[in-house]
Amino acid sequence: MTARQEIDLKHYIRHIPDFPKPGILFYDISTLMRNPDAWQMAMGRLARQVAPFKPDILAAVESRGFLTAAPLADRLGCGMLMLRKRGKLPGKTVSHTYDLEYGSDTLEIQHDAVQPGQRVVIMDDLLATGGTLAASATLLQKAGADVVAASVLVELTGLGGRARLGDIPVTTLLSYDE
Amino acid sequence: MTARQEIDLKHYIRHIPDFPKPGILFYDISTLMRNPDAWQMAMGRLARQVAPFKPDILAAVESRGFLTAAPLADRLGCGMLMLRKRGKLPGKTVSHTYDLEYGSDTLEIQHDAVQPGQRVVIMDDLLATGGTLAASATLLQKAGADVVAASVLVELTGLGGRARLGDIPVTTLLSYDE
Repeated sequence: MTARQEIDLKHYIRHIPDFPKPGILFYDISTLMRNPDAWQMAMGRLARQVAPFKPDILAAVESRGFLTAAPLADRLGCGMLMLRKRGKLPGKTVSHTYDLEYGSDTLEIQHDAVQPGQRVVIMDDLLATGGTLAASATLLQKAGADVVAASVLVELTGLGGRARLGDIPVTTLLSYDE
Repeated sequence: MTARQEIDLKHYIRHIPDFPKPGILFYDISTLMRNPDAWQMAMGRLARQVAPFKPDILAAVESRGFLTAAPLADRLGCGMLMLRKRGKLPGKTVSHTYDLEYGSDTLEIQHDAVQPGQRVVIMDDLLATGGTLAASATLLQKAGADVVAASVLVELTGLGGRARLGDIPVTTLLSYDE
């Protein structure tokens, strides 16, 4: 192996067919997380992707977004906040309801989670159709945040989710075009 | 301040009355997480508490356990696994159903999440009555793990949850006896 050859983290992603429903191929990051070297490598690469955006605070999308935002906040020395489903956060909250394929969903942040003008990077495990990330950006902007980027571990490029984020740049550790 | 005086992380914990239900005082770690210095300090102290147990893998209890297990796995160079509610994990799982005050709940891990004899430290944000941590320990032991410790950010000592863990040592960052 030469110095220029990176270790391919895709080797640590397991493919599970028909989850969460028939016909969906699930990219399982559990196998990445249980390997200490792979997890540190992934966090190191994420840190290098996210640091240039100079975030004041990372916004973690419930619940697998917690898995990357918490170590990145620790590595980069920035704050973090949680974006959660309705009713999970204590105290006063700001919420945003958005449409799903069937029905709707609501995301919340605490009312004082961000200060106006703070630079926020949204973090989640997966970018698929982009609905959750787009709703997260809208909610954070409503709260006065400057959403400077979104960061995901896995992007399914064929679903076009990136377009839902508009001008917000998206960084991805692993892309799949299937 | 002398070298021996530690910064008190309790200053970064917000108290929210009547959450999640009337009469309950909620210790909110959001205010700790949004402060970069406090979060790094907390993770540093957690790392010093957990490292002596020489874990092979950290077991993160959904979902606030993800917040500490993910950075600790990164700091300590060990793996991590998720303990989740029923139906959230892809592929074959092992489960454990346990009684709550009203009704019951089920926790799951992936069937290959731990290898027999692996040293596991369970991580969650809160130790209250200890029901979830005890159920987590039982499930992990059923899967062949050697549960060597549990680690929480906040312990409510008055509720006696520690006793539910039997011989398993519990480390705590912040204790409240109210």
